[in-house]
Order: sequence, then structure tokens, then C-alpha cells
Amino acid sequence: MNMWTNDLFRLDILREEQVEAIHEAAMRILEETGVRIADAPTLELLASQGLSAGGDDGLIVRFGRDFVMEQVAKAPSSFDVRSRNPERGFTIGGNHVVASPTGGAPLVQDLDRGRRQGTQDDYVELIKLCHVADELHSIDSGIIEFYDVPTEQRHLDMDYLTLRYTDKPYMAVGGTGPVARDCIAMAAIASGGRESMEASPSTFVVVNPASPLVWDDRMLGTVQEFASANQPVFVTPFIMAGGTSPITLAGAMAQYTAEILACIAIIQTIRPGCPSVFGGYVTGMDMLLGQPTLGTPEMSLATLAGGQLARHYDLPYRAGGAWTSAKVADAQAAYESSMGLWSTLLAGTNFVLHAAGLIDGSIATSYEKLVVDLEILRMQAAMLGGFATDEASFALETVAEVGPGGMYLASPHTLERFRDGVYRSELSSTEDHARWEAEGALDTEQRANAVWKRMLESYEDPGLDDAVDAELQDFMARRREEIAREEED
Amino acid sequence: MNMWTNDLFRLDILREEQVEAIHEAAMRILEETGVRIADAPTLELLASQGLSAGGDDGLIVRFGRDFVMEQVAKAPSSFDVRSRNPERGFTIGGNHVVASPTGGAPLVQDLDRGRRQGTQDDYVELIKLCHVADELHSIDSGIIEFYDVPTEQRHLDMDYLTLRYTDKPYMAVGGTGPVARDCIAMAAIASGGRESMEASPSTFVVVNPASPLVWDDRMLGTVQEFASANQPVFVTPFIMAGGTSPITLAGAMAQYTAEILACIAIIQTIRPGCPSVFGGYVTGMDMLLGQPTLGTPEMSLATLAGGQLARHYDLPYRAGGAWTSAKVADAQAAYESSMGLWSTLLAGTNFVLHAAGLIDGSIATSYEKLVVDLEILRMQAAMLGGFATDEASFALETVAEVGPGGMYLASPHTLERFRDGVYRSELSSTEDHARWEAEGALDTEQRANAVWKRMLESYEDPGLDDAVDAELQDFMARRREEIAREEED
Repeated sequence: MNMWTNDLFRLDILREEQVEAIHEAAMRILEETGVRIADAPTLELLASQGLSAGGDDGLIVRFGRDFVMEQVAKAPSSFDVRSRNPERGFTIGGNHVVASPTGGAPLVQDLDRGRRQGTQDDYVELIKLCHVADELHSIDSGIIEFYDVPTEQRHLDMDYLTLRYTDKPYMAVGGTGPVARDCIAMAAIASGGRESMEASPSTFVVVNPASPLVWDDRMLGTVQEFASANQPVFVTPFIMAGGTSPITLAGAMAQYTAEILACIAIIQTIRPGCPSVFGGYVTGMDMLLGQPTLGTPEMSLATLAGGQLARHYDLPYRAGGAWTSAKVADAQAAYESSMGLWSTLLAGTNFVLHAAGLIDGSIATSYEKLVVDLEILRMQAAMLGGFATDEASFALETVAEVGPGGMYLASPHTLERFRDGVYRSELSSTEDHARWEAEGALDTEQRANAVWKRMLESYEDPGLDDAVDAELQDFMARRREEIAREEED
Repeated sequence: MNMWTNDLFRLDILREEQVEAIHEAAMRILEETGVRIADAPTLELLASQGLSAGGDDGLIVRFGRDFVMEQVAKAPSSFDVRSRNPERGFTIGGNHVVASPTGGAPLVQDLDRGRRQGTQDDYVELIKLCHVADELHSIDSGIIEFYDVPTEQRHLDMDYLTLRYTDKPYMAVGGTGPVARDCIAMAAIASGGRESMEASPSTFVVVNPASPLVWDDRMLGTVQEFASANQPVFVTPFIMAGGTSPITLAGAMAQYTAEILACIAIIQTIRPGCPSVFGGYVTGMDMLLGQPTLGTPEMSLATLAGGQLARHYDLPYRAGGAWTSAKVADAQAAYESSMGLWSTLLAGTNFVLHAAGLIDGSIATSYEKLVVDLEILRMQAAMLGGFATDEASFALETVAEVGPGGMYLASPHTLERFRDGVYRSELSSTEDHARWEAEGALDTEQRANAVWKRMLESYEDPGLDDAVDAELQDFMARRREEIAREEED
């Protein structure tokens, strides 16, 4: 299994009664305001459970807390995701941390080729980089959108290229029912068929409400497909406090809790026990610019508090990441991403989407920013185990031998340990100033450019079984034709 | 009083038995290996307490744990430092955090003037910047060394210029007994005389052992002057694990605990109850480059563990800071400094020296890096209070009114709060990409350059009482003559 274990770096910032207050407010929102369920099959399903819709548009469902909590209790507190390489599987939940690159950006950028719309070639390069990066346990099949394949067919190529170039587990594209159905079908082909997949999840998906308090047919269609196949659903509102929720963090979190729990209740009604993840983002809103503010103190507070809510509901937690509004991989990119990744770690987050590569408020995926974020992750990982305090580690005999004013450099205690004892970075400048100047006085972004090129060179193709590859190709060929025909109609 | 209060962001990474194990090892080092006390007056003082020196050079004192712990128990768990502006005083200890700029660098750098030896003009500019920065509660009278005043006289100008241009409390130069005596005399002039100062500290100093396990006459001379005047002494070993201590963190921390407690025992023997701060740095060592590695995971672990040790001894804690080996205010500078400042905060640190401006492994003080660090500090400060979960903050009536699919932007709940509800940065780029390009596509270092110029423009002279100023000038004139005469001899 491939993930981190985080026992030490966990922080509760809310008092227990604050968690209870957010829960109570969420329950009142579900019961009094309700949620718009803009999806006929889901409304039918809920009606079969005695939950009728109302309101002006007949789509507002008021969820009783007993129903919601009864359903949510059916979701597992942790679950495994497998891959075709057994060593690459991971556990989501408990004290484990799984990191995934960013996803969803329409643009890509690097120092050589600038900022541009992504292509399949960029996509494959980025998948290869994420495959090489030890700090990334999971792959985001949407690491960038690419524009050299028609939109309606693109999800096929995205999931296929992920399966082709990495044997790490991956998050599928999803986003609508039909797309989700294709993603499930392809994952099934790659993991021994639907039955095997239902017994042991091999992909997963993210769904977001249209906040405030709307679940639409695109997302509920995705939920339907993934829940039916028992594949994990990461329920993650993306809220701009003051725009799509109350401006206060308490108000934003009560609302997002209502949105998440309503969806998980639906998932559990479809398929009891289907892995369901509690997740969310609360950004601020810059009222002058009318834009979300990312990588801010509010976002970090919400990330931390969300972890406590997830634990309150005994659900795995997805949140956080290397968020930034910076346009290049500069100091802002690093301090905002550090802020994000530190609060992510401390929140007890189990799955970190956007752990690396996000830039410009997630409008672009940056090669150099990816390398910077990997360094932050690697430094965090190096701390997770704390340090030993056994007899040998104190080396009291060596201390006595070296004595006051002595040097430890040549002592056996040092020589036995110096290879493992010190963190070394491939990215950071640690040489002295004269040597740094002699080597071109490169800043970190420029050095990151060299690092990702070395990483790409070190990529080794994990291969894909020929029969699986052929079956995937057949499936895609058939679906491309069908989709093209639907488009014509 | 001017400082932060940190109740929420505190983390223990050691189990209680690990703290006990480090304590036990430190006691054994003090008892079995001992400490070299290379200072005749201190050896006499210790002899008067029944502690005789031995070893080959007759300078090794083996400290019994009963003596050490009895003395250490006399140090207060927290204390106040005042300033001529009563609003600027602060408390060191408890749940309070006081941040101070970096100090001790021989060089200074900014984007306009490059990297260079510092001058008095640079020094005054930096003091003014730190005076303006709300995030810095304290001033480091050694923010840079400057070379346009002779070394032997420089401390007079450093402390005078600090007193002249800021009314924040400040750390005095110190470093030798005679220098410390001058610093105490000047602080006494500025704070109502020696008697008043002894009753209520108005400056403080840092002392470092020559690790491993040596306290020399320069530092013990400084200790003697400050402790006699009841001014706080921040005892802070700076250890390179594998060079000046065992390479293991446990070994390094046991040794530094021994070094700190020996010094605090001496301070308390000189002046029972004199404020004494437990502090320290443990860096790694790059064996290939033969240099300390800064801003690393090891340094953060040591910072965190040190906080637990300080609490174990019920002493205020000084540690951490914005450490980096980066040469410019780039991504590395920001991720290493974030790493440092996050672990500093989580360690429950009470006094953060080097909280802003340090670059290039503390060889230089950087104007732009100072601005970057201030932004990190400001983001942290914005989180310290957590968030409210009172009835009004949930805004359940607003949630019901806005309803599913609505917008919160124009709701009274939002409009009443948007000014205070969202973190805004003077430094970070939050505008969209087109506007960022139109405004020159500046990176964070370039924007930081503009920020410190605006800060300098906003500086308002706090003034210095004419009589005090005249007395300081007289004192310095006399001392300059005396020092020049000593140099001639």
C-alpha cells in the first residue's frame, strides 16, 4: 500500500461544542430550507424513502435529520482503492494521507513553452511526471483539459491515457451520468470486470453541488453511476463565502455540511456501504474583484475545521491542497501553497486533491509549480515520523568521548548515520552564494524547470496488458462512434 | 500590550516519555560529561555554590541535576518587556507570541541596490521598516551589521539608532561583557534609570554557547551584565547536528538542553528570578557542502520538540523563524520560511527571532524577503482566533431567504461583514491574469520591492525625548573616547 501515515501532525481548532453547533445548523438547513434535487431519478428514489419534494419548482427536498444520519452511518470510515500494480493501492481514511496532483485546469504553463491551452501531449507529459513523483500516490485523470480532442469524447482519452501511462490509482473524469458510465466501464475493463471492481474499488470520482444547496442532474447522474458500481464518491462543495454561502465561516461550513450529508444520504440510499468522502473547500471572495480568494487564512481555517466535521461523522476527509492565486512559481505561489498544505496536513486530511501543480487560481497547471509543490510535500513527509528517542539516539558515550568543545563530524555515530540523517533537496539552493552565482544564479522556478525535465527522463513505462489495451481501444472506438452519432442528432 | 495570543495552533509531537527521555539524557550529560566554563568569575561563582571545576584544563564543571533544577525553578514562566511607548510593551511566555526581525547578517540586499555590506543608512531604513510593520512586535538591534562605524564602537550606534527610530522594545547587541555593559547603560538612560529598569525590564539579549558544551567568557560576560541588571537573557544554542552535536535529533536536543539549563542555572545563581528564556536551533549539516542546512524538516521537528521541553521546564520559549538557504526572495525562500514559521507557531513559541528578512542562510538581510515574511506572519495572525460559531454567524434566516440556488452577495448579512470578513493582501497577486499582465507581470519579489518603498514612505517618527537623546549622545561620546583609548593601548 502506498500512502503516508500521519499520527503526529493533527490539530483540532474547534471546541467540541463548536462542532456540535455546526452540525445542528446543518441539520436545521436540511430540515427547514432543504436542498434542490434537480434530477428526476433521484427524486423518485427519495420519494420511495418517504421524502417528497416541494417548493415553487417542486424540487426542494427537506431532509429529516434521522433519515440523513441513518444513511450517512452506512458509509465506511475508511476504504481501499486498488490499482493494477498491487504496490500502488492505498487506503483512504484513518490516519492515512493520499496526495493527488491538481485537476480541472483549462490551461497549462511552463517556462519554455509559456501559458497555453493544453494538448494530449502535455497531458501525457504531466501524467508521466506524476507517475514518477513519489510524493503523489494518486493520479487525477483531469490534470489538464486538452483541446485537441472534441469535448464530448475527451473523457475517453483522459481516462485511457491515465490507464496507459501510469499504474497508480486514479480519479476518473465524471461530471455527467453518461461520462461517468464510460469511466466506470473503462475502469472495469482495466480491473478484471465490473464484478471484481464492485468488490474492490479501482477508481473514484468527485462531485460538487451548485451551491447554495443544489444538486443537479449532471452530478446526481455521476453519483448514480459510481454508487451503483460501488466506486467511491468524493462529495466536495466548492464554496465562495459571501457569494454562494453566508460570508461567515460558520455559516459557510454549516451549509456545506448540509450539502455533503444530503448527497452522501443519497449515495447510501442507492448503494448502502458505498465509500463516500466528506470534503469541501471554502474560499473567501474578493468583493472588489468579484473573485474567490485562494490560499488564504480563511481557506486554511475551513480546511482545519472540516477535518473535525469529517471525524464527527466518521467519514474519510478530502480537502486542502496547494492553492494559490499566483501567476508564476514565485514566493507567493510557495507561501500560499505552504499555507494550504500545512493546514491540509494538520486537518488530518485523508485525500489531498490539488496537492501539486495548481497555479493562477486553478486556471492553469504549471510544470514548475508542480515541482515546487512536490518539494513542500516531501519536506512534510520527512517530518511525519517525528524522531527516535531510544538509548542509541542519545549517543551519551559519544557525547562523553567528544567532550566539551569537540567535533562530531568524524565520530562513528555520525558517520554511520549521515546518509539518512539529513534532508537533501533536488530543488533547493543549499550551496554558498559564490557557487550559486557561478552556476548561473538560477531562481527556484528556473531550477524547477530543470528538475521536471530530469523527472521526465527518468520515467519508466509501467506497461499495460495487451488484451486490456485492445479492449479499451475497442470500447473507445465504439463509444466515439455513438457519441458522434448523438451529436449529429 | 502588543503581541499575539495563540491558543489554537499548538502541537505536541513528542510523547511525554520522550520528553522525559530527553530530560534524563540532558541530566546525564550535565553530570557525567559536564560543561566547559571558560570564564573565571563564573567559575568562582559556581565554586561558591559547591561546584568545582576539573578536567584536563581545569574548566569542566559537572552540574548535579538537583542544583540545576533548583536554580532553573527560580526563573519566571513569563515576564513583560516595556518600551517608552506603553502600548508597545509585550509579554514573553504563556500563550503569547512576539515576533522580531532577523539579526546578525553581515550583508544586506534589495532589488535596486543588490547585495552589499550594510551601512548605517541601510540599518536605519530597516529599523524604520520594522517599526512600520505591525507583524513585528520587537526590534532586533542587530538587524544588520554595518561597516561604516568601527567594530568596537558599532554596538553604541546600533542600540542608539534603534532607540532613536522606533519605540518598540528591542533586543540589545551584547556578545561580550563590555559591550553588554554599554547596552545596559543605554537602555537604562532610555527607561528612567537603572533602578527602574531592574524593576521592569526594558531590553534583553541572546547568548549562544560554543557547542558542544562550552560557555566562554564573552557569553558569560554578557550573562553577568544582563543578569545583574535583571534584564532577560535568551539562552539559545545554535547547533549543527552531526558537527557540533550528535547527528540524531534526540542527541542534539539532549545536548542543547544541557547547554541551556547550565546557563540558566548560572543566571539564576547571579540573580534569582531573572527572566531566562529556553531557546535553540538545531540545523542539519550537509556533509557534502560542509554547511548547515536551514529551513528543513529536521529543523522544524527540533523547533516543535523544543517547545515541549520549554513547557516541561515551565520556561518561555524562543525558537524558529523564517530560515532559508535561498539566495533571492523566490519560491524556495517562501516554502522554507513557511516551513519554519508554521513549525514555530505550532511549537507554542513565545519569541520568534528571525521572523522576517533572513536570506541566504542568514548571511544577508533582504528587504524583499522581509516583505514576503511579513505576509506569511500576517496570514498566520489572521488564523489565530479561529472563527465564531454563535447564532448570528450561522445566519440561518438568511440561508432560508436566499434559498437553494440563490446568491448571498447582496444579502444584508454579507454586506454588513464583507469589509472584515475577507483576508486581503498588499503583496499577493489576486487579480486575473490579463490584469496582472497589463500591470507588468510582476513576480512577488518585484511587488515586494514596491511594498517596502510604500512602507518606508508611511514611516512616522515616534520621536525621542530631547533630554534622553542628549544623555545618550553624552554617554556614547564618552564611551567612544574610552574605546579608542583602549584600542590604542
